[in-house]
Amino acid sequence: MLKLKFDKNGLIPAIIQDAKTKEILMLAYMNAESFKRTLKTKKTWFYSRSRKKFWMKGEESGNVQKVKKIYVDCDADTILVLVEPKGAACHNGYNSCFYRTEKGKIILKKVFDPKKVYRK
Amino acid sequence: MLKLKFDKNGLIPAIIQDAKTKEILMLAYMNAESFKRTLKTKKTWFYSRSRKKFWMKGEESGNVQKVKKIYVDCDADTILVLVEPKGAACHNGYNSCFYRTEKGKIILKKVFDPKKVYRK
Repeated sequence: MLKLKFDKNGLIPAIIQDAKTKEILMLAYMNAESFKRTLKTKKTWFYSRSRKKFWMKGEESGNVQKVKKIYVDCDADTILVLVEPKGAACHNGYNSCFYRTEKGKIILKKVFDPKKVYRK
Repeated sequence: MLKLKFDKNGLIPAIIQDAKTKEILMLAYMNAESFKRTLKTKKTWFYSRSRKKFWMKGEESGNVQKVKKIYVDCDADTILVLVEPKGAACHNGYNSCFYRTEKGKIILKKVFDPKKVYRK
């Protein structure tokens, strides 16, 4: 197993890519424990910097991500996770979190209504 | 233009993806100035945390990345840049920095010899 370089907060960015379509779905952060859980459960687990807690993608929405492959970059300070997503990745209702251009133009269609999926 | 959320060090992670093949090439960090230069020159500019300086991808190796599209995620704290790469992205001689699995298995072929491309 490669030794990952976590930052001074104990986190490493994880790029989540759809294994089939190659679309980038999201970027989130893992700590050592969420990386372990990701390996063990084959579902994506992250660490929320704002909520200061672990979370499994889809624990509330049901939109889990099944892990297919994991790659590590040259500096071992970023990981790339190829997943088979069930449902959409973005809590705003889009398939990918990258649904806007830098000018703010929305380039994806909403696939679910966040109000109906998230309780809070 | 969307207002990007730079972190407390003034940086934002930028995922670099091949516009054609959809392969993830690298992840690097931009500050406000390197983002501006990226927009202006249509080449990727980053900020090196270790060397504490701007750099343009390819300034030494010649392996520049022509910017095709820029997307911003839901929280505006990550950007995704689709590029047309000239040559390989990784300073270790691979097309992508993600050339290893989490177990350390190399899954890409080396396309150049770093010793011949980088002076230092």
